[in-house]
Parts: sequence; C-alpha cells; structure tokens
Amino acid sequence: MSSFQVRFPVQVIFGKGELRRVGEVAKGFGKKAFLAIDPFIKNSGVGEEIKGYLKREQVEALVYDEIRPNPPYDKVDEAASLAKEEGCDMVIGVGGGSAIDTAKAVAVVVGSGGSSWDYVQRTDHQVAQLKETTLPIIAVPTTAGTGSEATLYAVLTNPKIKEKSTIINPRIFPKVSIVDPELTVSMPPALTASTGFDALSHAIESYINVNSNPISELVALDSIKLLSRYLPGAVTNGENIEARSKVAWAATLAGVAISHAGTVLPHAMGQPISGLYDAPHGGTIAACFVRIMEYSFISNLEKFAAIAEAMDESVSTLSVRQKAEKSIELLKRLLKDINLNVSFGTYGVQREDVPKLVDIVLKGFKQDVDAHPRKVGKEEIEKLYCECI
Amino acid sequence: MSSFQVRFPVQVIFGKGELRRVGEVAKGFGKKAFLAIDPFIKNSGVGEEIKGYLKREQVEALVYDEIRPNPPYDKVDEAASLAKEEGCDMVIGVGGGSAIDTAKAVAVVVGSGGSSWDYVQRTDHQVAQLKETTLPIIAVPTTAGTGSEATLYAVLTNPKIKEKSTIINPRIFPKVSIVDPELTVSMPPALTASTGFDALSHAIESYINVNSNPISELVALDSIKLLSRYLPGAVTNGENIEARSKVAWAATLAGVAISHAGTVLPHAMGQPISGLYDAPHGGTIAACFVRIMEYSFISNLEKFAAIAEAMDESVSTLSVRQKAEKSIELLKRLLKDINLNVSFGTYGVQREDVPKLVDIVLKGFKQDVDAHPRKVGKEEIEKLYCECI
Repeated sequence: MSSFQVRFPVQVIFGKGELRRVGEVAKGFGKKAFLAIDPFIKNSGVGEEIKGYLKREQVEALVYDEIRPNPPYDKVDEAASLAKEEGCDMVIGVGGGSAIDTAKAVAVVVGSGGSSWDYVQRTDHQVAQLKETTLPIIAVPTTAGTGSEATLYAVLTNPKIKEKSTIINPRIFPKVSIVDPELTVSMPPALTASTGFDALSHAIESYINVNSNPISELVALDSIKLLSRYLPGAVTNGENIEARSKVAWAATLAGVAISHAGTVLPHAMGQPISGLYDAPHGGTIAACFVRIMEYSFISNLEKFAAIAEAMDESVSTLSVRQKAEKSIELLKRLLKDINLNVSFGTYGVQREDVPKLVDIVLKGFKQDVDAHPRKVGKEEIEKLYCECI
Repeated sequence: MSSFQVRFPVQVIFGKGELRRVGEVAKGFGKKAFLAIDPFIKNSGVGEEIKGYLKREQVEALVYDEIRPNPPYDKVDEAASLAKEEGCDMVIGVGGGSAIDTAKAVAVVVGSGGSSWDYVQRTDHQVAQLKETTLPIIAVPTTAGTGSEATLYAVLTNPKIKEKSTIINPRIFPKVSIVDPELTVSMPPALTASTGFDALSHAIESYINVNSNPISELVALDSIKLLSRYLPGAVTNGENIEARSKVAWAATLAGVAISHAGTVLPHAMGQPISGLYDAPHGGTIAACFVRIMEYSFISNLEKFAAIAEAMDESVSTLSVRQKAEKSIELLKRLLKDINLNVSFGTYGVQREDVPKLVDIVLKGFKQDVDAHPRKVGKEEIEKLYCECI
C-alpha cells in the first residue's frame, strides 16, 4: 500500500427535514450570517424558512441572492465587500455549486483580503495564501451534484478572460453541511439529470484518478452504485424521496471522493466550456464523458471493471476485460435513462475554438490532465474536443 | 433513509515510514509535547526516533512511559499533573489503546481540570464538561486494533471499584494520527491476533449496531473484508508488510465505524472482565464474540449475510439465511486461523462472579446493550456470561 492521507473535517448533517437545524448550527459560529441564496430557489420560501430558523437563535442574516451561474470573481468580490461592511462573521451558502462556491469565496476574501481571483490555482500567477481568519462556512445544498458541501474547492470564473479556475484549500471545507434531500424535490427533471450526472462524474473521475487512495475509492464506488440505481428514479419521479435521498447522499460521497483524489480529463475539458460559453457545468461534463471513458478504459481494466460491477451487479460473471468494456455501455444506457443528450455543439462550441480551449485546459486544469489514467497531450485533447462537438 | 451525521475531524497520515512526519505535525500545535509511550515498545528505539524528529522541529518532549494496560484513572491524573507542571501544550500517544487513551485523558485533564474519571460516561454520576482548552492530541498507533487513532473515545479503569468506563467526546478526536504499518511489524503473533480481532469486533459490532448509518456501514464492511483476508497473514508472518498495512488500515477504518455507530454486546460484556481481572481487552472480546453472534444473527439476517459476503466472496450463491448462518462458521474459522482460543475462564472468571459482572454491564455499558440488534436483559446477559466461561 502506498502512503495517503484522509482529511474530512466537515460535519455532515444528513436527512429529510434537517434544514430546521441551521439556526442551532449557525449560533455556534457567530451573530450575523452572510446568507448566499441561489436565485433559482428564491421563490421557494427556503430563504424565508432559513431566516426564521436563524432568527429564533438570535442570528441575523444578510441575504444575498445575486448569485450568478459560474460565479464571476468580480461579483464575488463585491459580495465580500458587503459582507465585510455589514460585519458578517460566518457565511451560509444555500443552493447549487454557484451559491455554495460564492459563499466559500466570500469567506476567503473577508478573512484574507484582496480579490477572490488571487486565491485560485493557476500556473500563470502566484496563488495568495489563506489566513486563519477565513470565515466559517455552512453549506446547504439544494441540488444533488456539485458535492461542494463536502469539498475544499470553490470554482470561479474570470469574465475578462472567460476562464474558470478553482480555489483549493482546506480552510474552505464547510464547518457544517446540512444535506436535506427534501430541498432537492423541486428540481425539474433536466436539472436533476445534469447535476446528478455531475455527481457520477465526480465519483468515476476520482476513482480512475491516478491519485486515488483507499478511502476515495471506497466512497466513490459506493456513490457510483447508488447513483446508477437511484438517479433514473429521481429524474423520472422527483417526488420519490427515497430516490432523492440516495442521490443526495451519493453526491455528498462523491464530494468526499474528489476532496481526496480530484477530477480528471472530463472536468479539465468541460470547465473551459462553461467559462467561455456560460454553459451549465453538468452538461459540459456529460458532453464529453462517454467519449473520454471509451478512450481511457484500456489504461486500467480493473478499475473500469469495478465501475461496471458497481453500476450493474449482473456483469459479475464476465471477464475483467468484458466488464471494463461494459462500463461504457452502462454509461450510455444511464445517460439515455435520464434523458441527458448533449454535445459541446449544444453549447455553441465550434471547431475553430478548439485550439483556444486546449490552451485553457493546459493552463488552468493541468493537475486534472496529469491525473488522468491515460496519458494525453495537446494533440489528444484537441482530437477529443473535435470528437465531442 | 433516516437522518444521520458524519463527523471525522481526524487527519490521518497513513503509510510505511510516515512516522518521520511526526515532528512537522507536532510543530503545528506547540512547543512541548507530553509523549506517552507504551512500555512494550520502550526498548524498540521508537521513542528515541520520535524524540529526534521532534527535536529537529524544535519541539521538546516530556517522555512518559509508565503507561498501564487498562489505564487506571488515578495514574492518568498523576500524569496530567506532570504534563501541566511542565507546561506541555500537546499530547502524543504512541502505542496500543492504553497509551493513546492515556494521552487523550491527559489532554482532557490538563485542559479542563478535575480528575479524568469525572469525564467518563456513567449513569451513576454527573459527567463533567470538556473545555475548548483540551490539549491537541496526536496519535501514533503501534498495534492494529484499538482504532483509538480514529475515535472520540478513551477507556479508563477505576482501580477502587475495578470498573472500566469511557470518555466519549468529539474534543478527544486526535487532530492528527500517523498510522505507520512498520510500527506494527514487531508485534508477536498472539498480540497481532488479539488486537486484530479487536479491530474486527469493532467493524462487526458497529455494522450490526442499531445506530449504524450509511457511512459506518460502508467503512465497517470494507474493514471486515480486509481483516478476513489479511489478518491471518499478518499473524503467521509478521514481516509481511502488505498484510500489516491492510490490517493497520482496516483497524483505522473500524475506528471510524465505531466513532459513528459504537459497539454492542461483546464490548459491553468483555470490558468489565478487563476491569475486574486486568485481562487484555482483545482477548475478553474474543472470548464471548462467537457465542453472542450465534445468539444474535437471527435478529438481522441481511446484515449477517453481508458480513459473510465481506468475509468470503464464495458464499454469494447462498440464500440470505444460509449466508447469515455461514458468518458464524467463518468467524470460528478465522479465530482458528489466527490461533486465538480463549474463554472468560482463561482470565479467571467464575460462575459466582456473573451477577456482579451483569450489574457492571448495565451500569457502565448500557448504551452498548441498548444498541445490540437482539434485545437482551439481565437474564440473557447472565446466561451468555455463563456460556462463555
């Protein structure tokens, strides 16, 4: 066994109706919360409900609902100024990845100064250090996909250069995440599908990652198993709370997995698309996922065989090679079952954009490329992009 | 899915040779360490090695090697006075459960005052509160069994009443645990067997615990799988570092499992024996384990079937009932393979002691009894004790 580390400082409170505990949780961290709420749940009453729970525990809330998808760092910086002026001593992110990542980045800027973009991992600048004074973060996911409730990541977009990059730091693990599957019930089928597929991509990418370790592999395989069984049910009947619960838990597990092992080529190739075309994150991953897996399974037959077994027990009698091949077929079937049929073309990508995209991949997502099980360079990435348009 | 919580704030550094990182880790917590070292490794040079690593990072060490098996709380209190006088700002526990639990209890007393016994969970006293000033704890296990490196537990003995009880508090999760399987290589076969079986009991007891949750079940099953495959190899050839590594990791996983779900009847019945007769912990668990499982499997066939599958894949074609029955047979086989053949009689227990033992169980280990999958009362426990003598 090689050396590895386990680090998961997030306290996760999971369960139907657990949202009601947000007040008692927040009370432990201060008196005034910067409450970042996803606009897509603005009218659901969840914001008011949370404010009520906070008030009951004498915690004031500064509501911020100007969250943008693929959060632009300059908007985040404005939000952080507001949070600082108003004396917020914690942040609460409620929503999908954009809301939670906005909350995380606000916690960073309030605690350590400067601009949120100073803290993203890139090869073309010096990454700023986070101070101990980073505000405590509470995450309340309302989608089941991003896993941000369980990670040390916050993904931001730079609108000037139309590129995405990520703050990666243990200080932005949420202190507490409340994962209440009831909050995901109102998601429409298409959003359930794309966010759920994002979770599956986290589980699979961390599993095949060359930096995977025994804990990331264990939780990733369990996440793959749960998503394969329950995501179609959550998409086709959003009221199915058992399916919603399993998918929500699987998404959190997949977050644990990427916190330990990171993502690989599909995230490296998908993220630049959402930066450049403001396309939805889950969709950009789904657009290239199967093609990249088809291209890559040969590099680690055992792992792809294990993925197939997690997705469908009935493959157990096949050979390792057959199982590994089968994993691709099972992925195609799942995408069909959840009615997620997209390509990079869907988001307006054209062949002439490819060289620029490849450049962005190699500048902003080099770590994901290096961790991919099949070695790829500029040319291979270019070819894969073209095949996915 | 029911509600549950995940909480695992321990940073685990796992791997052969990782002991060398203890200095850099300790540096992050202060200037002077209370270094509790198990006497059974006193002459191995590990203590000197650790002092060297600490010195290199300007961390002073106060070596304390008067650790007793089943640590008596009054000795722990003396150690804590020493640590306080000497101005230690962290504790490092190196050894088996006794050393790590001593270190944890010293951290409690230095940080919160009073006596260590004030903090143990019992129904016959008011449990004292731990303060935020509990010293940071670093754990370095040299056996693979206790799981204390991954738990919020510290088990102490009260020599006046010859009873054991446990401090249970999130503040005594180690900040960092260094699990270096090389440290376990020198354990003789019998100690490898009894400590390894203790780890297996943690995994199985947490798995069948009525308070188990998706995360404790996941890590418990993986631990059972690893221990079934690798413990016999670690016992029969202690130099087999791969087997030692798998067993060490499995023991840590089992610690994660009991941190989330706790133990059940075997621990409730075994612990009073080690308190009363100063018997080794692992042995007292092994002495009653199979009999209790035989008595209990009927209460949850699915779970015992899953245990059998984790222990030996070849059972997969059997029915659920058959698999559940098979789990008992597989446990007997494993005990034979690791040459662990003990009964309560081995430690001097006699029939006339049983009523007293039952009293202790119901006073000090009520939570374990209540969490057992098959409901038992005074009479059943009495009968089980008699059958295990």
